[in-house]
Parts: sequence; C-alpha cells; structure tokens
Amino acid sequence: MRVIIAVDGMGGDHAPEAVVQGSLEAAKDPSLHILLVGPGEKLRQQLSRHPRASSVEVVPASQVITMEEGAASALRSKPDSSMAVAIKLVKSGRAQAFVTAGNSGAAMALSAYHWGVVPGIERPALAAILPTRRGKVVLLDAGANVDCSPSMLCEFAILGAAYARTVLEVKTPRVALFSIGEETSKGNAVCRQAYRLLSSLSPQNSFLEFIGNTEGTQLYHGLADVVVCDGFVGNAVLKTSEGVAEFVVDMMKRFISSSKLALFGSLFTRPALRRFLEFCDYAEYGGAPLLGVQGVCIVAHGRSNATAIANAIRVAALAVTHNLVPNILEGVDLLAKSSLFTKVKPA
Amino acid sequence: MRVIIAVDGMGGDHAPEAVVQGSLEAAKDPSLHILLVGPGEKLRQQLSRHPRASSVEVVPASQVITMEEGAASALRSKPDSSMAVAIKLVKSGRAQAFVTAGNSGAAMALSAYHWGVVPGIERPALAAILPTRRGKVVLLDAGANVDCSPSMLCEFAILGAAYARTVLEVKTPRVALFSIGEETSKGNAVCRQAYRLLSSLSPQNSFLEFIGNTEGTQLYHGLADVVVCDGFVGNAVLKTSEGVAEFVVDMMKRFISSSKLALFGSLFTRPALRRFLEFCDYAEYGGAPLLGVQGVCIVAHGRSNATAIANAIRVAALAVTHNLVPNILEGVDLLAKSSLFTKVKPA
Repeated sequence: MRVIIAVDGMGGDHAPEAVVQGSLEAAKDPSLHILLVGPGEKLRQQLSRHPRASSVEVVPASQVITMEEGAASALRSKPDSSMAVAIKLVKSGRAQAFVTAGNSGAAMALSAYHWGVVPGIERPALAAILPTRRGKVVLLDAGANVDCSPSMLCEFAILGAAYARTVLEVKTPRVALFSIGEETSKGNAVCRQAYRLLSSLSPQNSFLEFIGNTEGTQLYHGLADVVVCDGFVGNAVLKTSEGVAEFVVDMMKRFISSSKLALFGSLFTRPALRRFLEFCDYAEYGGAPLLGVQGVCIVAHGRSNATAIANAIRVAALAVTHNLVPNILEGVDLLAKSSLFTKVKPA
Repeated sequence: MRVIIAVDGMGGDHAPEAVVQGSLEAAKDPSLHILLVGPGEKLRQQLSRHPRASSVEVVPASQVITMEEGAASALRSKPDSSMAVAIKLVKSGRAQAFVTAGNSGAAMALSAYHWGVVPGIERPALAAILPTRRGKVVLLDAGANVDCSPSMLCEFAILGAAYARTVLEVKTPRVALFSIGEETSKGNAVCRQAYRLLSSLSPQNSFLEFIGNTEGTQLYHGLADVVVCDGFVGNAVLKTSEGVAEFVVDMMKRFISSSKLALFGSLFTRPALRRFLEFCDYAEYGGAPLLGVQGVCIVAHGRSNATAIANAIRVAALAVTHNLVPNILEGVDLLAKSSLFTKVKPA
C-alpha cells in the first residue's frame, strides 16, 4: 500500500531547508509519496540542490502561518497557507496524512475545522511519545488544552489507548492518571474526579486497562503505556524532562572536562555516549500525533531537523497503515454504547 | 551563636537509624545543639552504638505519625507524637528550628497549628531548593497546596524571595512564574491572572524582581532565583526531574555497559562521574523549607539517609542565623503597606 503524506513545507524553525531534506529522506521509502506544500518557487529551488529532487511533489500555497500567530486569525485570514492547503489535501482524499513542524495551535484549529473532531470527543489532544526503560509511553495532553475537565481526561485515555493499540501495537494498553501520589486521594480536584471516572470505565472493556495514579518519578519506568493529564501539566512535564536531560548531560560533561584522567577515559566512552544521546534525541521520536480529529496529523518539534521531519513522516504513515482514526472511532463508539460512558459524558 | 534544633527522631523511611546518624554528624559542629525527639529507650539504644552519643540530647515522645496518616487525624489523636513534641519545643523557645523527614502534610498542619501562619499569608508553601547551571533555584509550592488561587502564587513569590534573600543571600531575587510559554498570554487561567498580579507587585519594591514566565526547559538554566507554581505542578516538576535524572543516568550506564571499549574508558571517568552523581543527589540539598509558618521547619525527603538529615539540620540552622522568619514578616508587611498589595489581597 502506498501512503501519500502532505507535508507543511514552511513549518518549524528550520523550514524550508530541514523540511525539504527530511521529505527527501523519507521519500527513499518507495511505499511513501510526499506532497510538499508551500511557495512553489522557493520549495523547488531548495529541492533543486538535492539529487532525487523528483521523488517529492510540490503543491503550491501562497501564505505562511508564523509560530507566534493566533490560531483563530491564522484560520480566518490565511486560507491559502501551506498548513491549510496541506490539511485540505487530506480532506479531499489526495493525501492520507498531514505533517507539520509549525504552529501547533494553528495545526489543531485548522485540522479540527477542516476534518472535524471525532464525535463524542470534546477536544483533540496532542500526544507526546516518550522513551522509557521498557518501551514507549504516550503522554497526553501535551499542551493543546490547558484547563481540562475530568471527562476530558477520560477521553484522552481513549485517544491515547487507541494510539498505543494501533501504532505501538499494544493489545490492551495500561492507562495511568498523572498525579502527585499513588493513593486515590492524591492530586487536585480534577484528578480525583477523573480517577473515579477512569476506574468505572476500565473493568467493562478490553480496549484499555486503568492502572491508577502514576507520578513523575515513575513516568520513565515504562509501567504504563498511556499517561493522561491536562495540557498544562503535560507540557510542564515534557519541557521539564527536556530541560533536566540537557542539564544532566551538560553537567556530566562539565565534571568530565574538569579531570584530565576522565577526559582520557572519555575517548573510549564517547561512541557509546553518542549512541545514548541519539536514544535521548527527540528527533528519533517523530513528533506528536494530534488525536481526536478525523484525520492523521503529526506535529513535529518546532526545532525539528531533517531527521525529525523524516521520522514524523514515517510515524504518520504508520498511523495510516495501522488504521489509527478508525480505531479511535471504534473506541469512542464502544464506550459510548456502554452504560459507563453515559456516566462520563451525560450527553 | 549556638543554634538549638529539634529533630523528629521517627520521621522518614530509614528512621530512627538515619536520623540518629545524621544528627550525630551535624552535632560535630559545636555551634549546633540537637534535641532528638522520639521514644526515649529506642533512640538511646540507637545512639549507644555510636561514639559521641552524648553530643545529642534525647527528648522523649511516646507516639509516632506514620507516612500514610491524614494530617487532621495526626493533629487530633497524637498529641505526644515525636513531630508534635519537637514543634512544641520550638514554640516554647527551647529550640529554634524543627527538622523532619516524616509526613510532610502532618508537618505542615502541626507547625501551622502550634506556631501560627504568618499574618497576610493564606497558606504555607513547601519550597524545593534545586541545583541549576548557575546557583540554586527555589521552586514553590512543591506539593503542599494542590489547587491555588492567583493571589496565593503572589504570596509564594514573597515567601520564596524571603528565603532567597536570607538563606541564599541573593540581594533582589529574580522571581519567575512557571508556565508553558514565555508570552504573557500562555498558561492556564490561574497563571494568566497571577502574571498580572506579579507584574504590578514588582516595580514598586526592591524585595523581588518579577522577570515573567519561565518554562521547564529553562528551569535549570538558573535565570530565576525563585519560581512559583501551584503545588500540583511543582510536585509534578520535582518528581519528573528526579525520574528523568535517574533515567538518564541509568540509560547511560546501560549504553556504556554494552561496549567493552566504553567499559574500559569508564574506569577513568568513574571518579568524575561519582562527583557528578553527588552533585545530583537530593541528599546534598538538605530538604525543603516550609515557608509561611511562624517558625523554621525543614522537611527532608522521606528517603533521607544520614547525609540528607545532617544537611537538613544545617539548612535549618542557616535559616535561624539568617533571620528567615523576621525577613518573611518584613516582606509581607512591606507589601501589605503598598497600595499594590491591596489589589492582590482585597482583605
């Protein structure tokens, strides 16, 4: 099966260069076809610098949404933006998925507007895929919704579980609620209510298994496949993780540099540490899927380099071939039919 | 000046052994006198195993508050707990500060009850002291108050600044609001309101300087001396930091172990890495001060070893000799007098 991906050629801090390179890299896979969307002249000029330029198809779009732009204004005033055109390619059926390293708020607003939100889901959520000691964990919401209701956290559980089932191929995903203690009584008001709703969802289905609260200390142990939280907390956890990992690596280098003996030893540890840094690199994780819209949308990091873009395209293709969106619809449908879900969303 | 510290002999996962050892370690400093509070027989028996046992004075208390116990029930039903007796030693003037590695909720409830909360402060906050690339940062609230109002975040700014001014000796502490973007518009509803209040507080005084929003990626850069957030977010950030640091170090070891060359090199880097791990170790940071009560209370990590206890005792002594509580009273008073503060707390 050949998958066609519409890529926002102008999204991210290093666009269009990194996007062009990443698209060419991904296009080496003959099962992928890339539609690169943006100012035709500019993109073709970038492409012309590379061999195999013809493996990527350019689709023109005259406008660009900046990183600072408000989602509402981007939606209203830029109908021919690279993002809008790419999203419409998916709507019309010319492409099957959309990838951008641009403004995530705009990506969410535009894909919700053009594709629609999955019925039964209040708001789409951005899911971060993180490495752990054992496999990967889907953390959502990673920043799309700062103030969430308990029922939204339940919806996130369904969305995250659908992603883990399909793309990560976990049969019955273990879902945990992010909190500040393992006991039921711990957490803020929203958490405590969400705990009760999630507990009542779980026993009746094999779509997901609710395993209770989890804390930041356990997040990277890999005990859960999906961790749900509001977008403020999710974004805080994600950015703090990035900050701590950089800090630890920097300080380690500083301590090694301060000793001649350690510097000598580091000549031998360097290749292993390089593999370790690759393992830590966000670029290897291929961006965050936006879950809950009726289409496949992958939001790559604003700082994305070519590798990150190529991986985001591959993740988008996996979501298509593994039927992510039909699986989400099925999950929501299954739960909507259960009497338990009526408790969660009293219509 | 000789400082007398009341130490909860029964607090923490490794009590009383670790507490006894830590107290003896701290008591090597002739300017410190330790009152070790708990079951007399048990503590004396522990002490008898060590030389210099006489350098620590035992004060008997018949009850123990467990880690799982609710704060209200601990307060009501255990008047002779090691924690309550130690806190009352401070109230009566026999000691000048209180240190525990026990139940932090109970420590907060008991010290607020016996000592009182600083007038003008709604709720005390737990402050975590974290290492950064440049100096230390005071992060509060670290978990005492899960749902906070915007005015509480302003009070945390004052409490954290008072700590940074006195114990960390920063003249005009730079205070940042933890959020998920640098722009004023970013964050949840509470954050956005707190931003406005903090902006109006700052220009009129030299007690603190509000420098705007900060994100998790920047927390360890050391751009701020104090970072304020609600207790849910603070605890999430703290525990995630712990989890990520452990994960990074573990994975690094795993990558090094998988290569013979790297294992050879690690023989030479090991001493530098050991110094680095010491730098990362929470035990070096001496526990979290509880700010906003009318006394000095330091809550050490539940997992505290002897080093962590000794450092917590030293931090408590510094807070006493540097006049932490009078400085907090002064800060609140100064701001209460300013017309701006009436906007923050309309009485």
